[in-house]
Amino acid sequence: MSDLHPPEHQVAGHRASASKLGPLIDGSGLFYKPLQAGDRGEHEVAFYEAFSAHAAVPARIRDTFFPRFHGTRLLPTEAQPGEPHPHLVLDDLLAGFQAPCVADIKIGAITWPPSSPEPYIAKCLAKDRGTTSVLLGFRVSGVRVVGPEGAVWRTERPEVKAMDTAGVRRVLRRYVSSVADEGMDCALAAAVYGGKGGVLSQLRELKAWFEEQTLFHFYSASILLGYDAAAVAAGGDGGGVTVKLVDFAHVAEGDGVIDHNFLGGLCSLIKFVSDIVPETPHTQPLGPS
Amino acid sequence: MSDLHPPEHQVAGHRASASKLGPLIDGSGLFYKPLQAGDRGEHEVAFYEAFSAHAAVPARIRDTFFPRFHGTRLLPTEAQPGEPHPHLVLDDLLAGFQAPCVADIKIGAITWPPSSPEPYIAKCLAKDRGTTSVLLGFRVSGVRVVGPEGAVWRTERPEVKAMDTAGVRRVLRRYVSSVADEGMDCALAAAVYGGKGGVLSQLRELKAWFEEQTLFHFYSASILLGYDAAAVAAGGDGGGVTVKLVDFAHVAEGDGVIDHNFLGGLCSLIKFVSDIVPETPHTQPLGPS
Repeated sequence: MSDLHPPEHQVAGHRASASKLGPLIDGSGLFYKPLQAGDRGEHEVAFYEAFSAHAAVPARIRDTFFPRFHGTRLLPTEAQPGEPHPHLVLDDLLAGFQAPCVADIKIGAITWPPSSPEPYIAKCLAKDRGTTSVLLGFRVSGVRVVGPEGAVWRTERPEVKAMDTAGVRRVLRRYVSSVADEGMDCALAAAVYGGKGGVLSQLRELKAWFEEQTLFHFYSASILLGYDAAAVAAGGDGGGVTVKLVDFAHVAEGDGVIDHNFLGGLCSLIKFVSDIVPETPHTQPLGPS
Repeated sequence: MSDLHPPEHQVAGHRASASKLGPLIDGSGLFYKPLQAGDRGEHEVAFYEAFSAHAAVPARIRDTFFPRFHGTRLLPTEAQPGEPHPHLVLDDLLAGFQAPCVADIKIGAITWPPSSPEPYIAKCLAKDRGTTSVLLGFRVSGVRVVGPEGAVWRTERPEVKAMDTAGVRRVLRRYVSSVADEGMDCALAAAVYGGKGGVLSQLRELKAWFEEQTLFHFYSASILLGYDAAAVAAGGDGGGVTVKLVDFAHVAEGDGVIDHNFLGGLCSLIKFVSDIVPETPHTQPLGPS
């Protein structure tokens, strides 16, 4: 526990510092997320507890698309010296990656649970309209790409805030391009987005669950995409291509109704990603030439 | 043209009268919809013209899920004596039905095109939040059920305005129940919702198109369900089960993005309908007993 530090692969939200709480890792494969202020933190804990134990959630969905939850823990923080803060303890989704690449995409045209107080709805709505959320059904919160040799490209906050549809298309191409290549060659698109176990295939499996599940409405949750550029460059099946839902401070009960808002945004993201995969050069078929 | 009158199967919007414009039929199989005020009427004409001629719209989709468009025509109206009003000329979707049953369902959690003026957005948003639109991704605008002998059950406006999730479930059961039966027996569910050519099968075909199409965003459009209770009661394949999109005054260009808002609501409607079909008694299998 002495080695707590902010993860370098964090792309959205506040970074832990002397003035702010933020997520921490300790190199053991766990990810510590400080409970948010107000009732959001408790709400997220309550979601993880309910979700982890819910008999109607298929094990395959829980294990594939959600971080594993290990309870909560009080941790010392730089922002609150002498006053330990409760943290969610989750799996670090990118633990062990040599060159962790990550994209955080907030899903849904509507990010406010209908039961929220008016000022909160007004604030969210302004943000949903001012970003691509209403138009695309999702917005990109942050992207970080690392080349196999360690060169890093990442989105900056002003760029993220101003990102339009063309910007979303660019950054989704950038996410699977050689990091040094300004031309966005999409060199890794087939390996990361395509194929069995790729992002598209995983998103489609998630979509099938959202067409049926009426347990939870995932307002303001994100899909976190991850892969290890070093492993992908090395070839084989070990690229660590990951698709996970995160950020559950605003999840509402589904009450027998599907989460059409998340599902619509997910379908839109699937279309954006599938528009990129066919652009990659096809592998030459084996055989006499 | 001398026999113009409001269709008895109209379930939403203003009914044509001495004080209001409203749709008319003349018994020839055509449906005349008065152009709406402001730019809405022209906008709807422009949509029908663009859509009818669009090479990227599959003929099967256009013919199955949209009313046929026959241009516009100036017609005399009771509300504006001596001042003919332009009308869209469309197929009457229920022409020839002996006992026309109809449900008008406005699709989408968001009914306002993002480019709309602020007061219009505020007005729509209040309505979307005050009805089931935000929660379910659709709201029921009106339902009319006619028994084979002519008994009629229909929603009244106050009931429609106050309809909650349970009310939506009830009315979707009522739509396929014997009209005299308060218990909502869902006697026609298998014939109308289920089977090849039934509502569910048609909605799923429509959904597959919406997962791909990026031409139009159908803000505030409705799905009109129709069937002929007399034909369904008579058995056979001739129940006239119909699924059509209508009301295109607020359609926006898709600009390469899918209509996640319509698609999400459509998926939600599919789930509601599919929750009803399995409740119906199964047909006894043929064979020795």
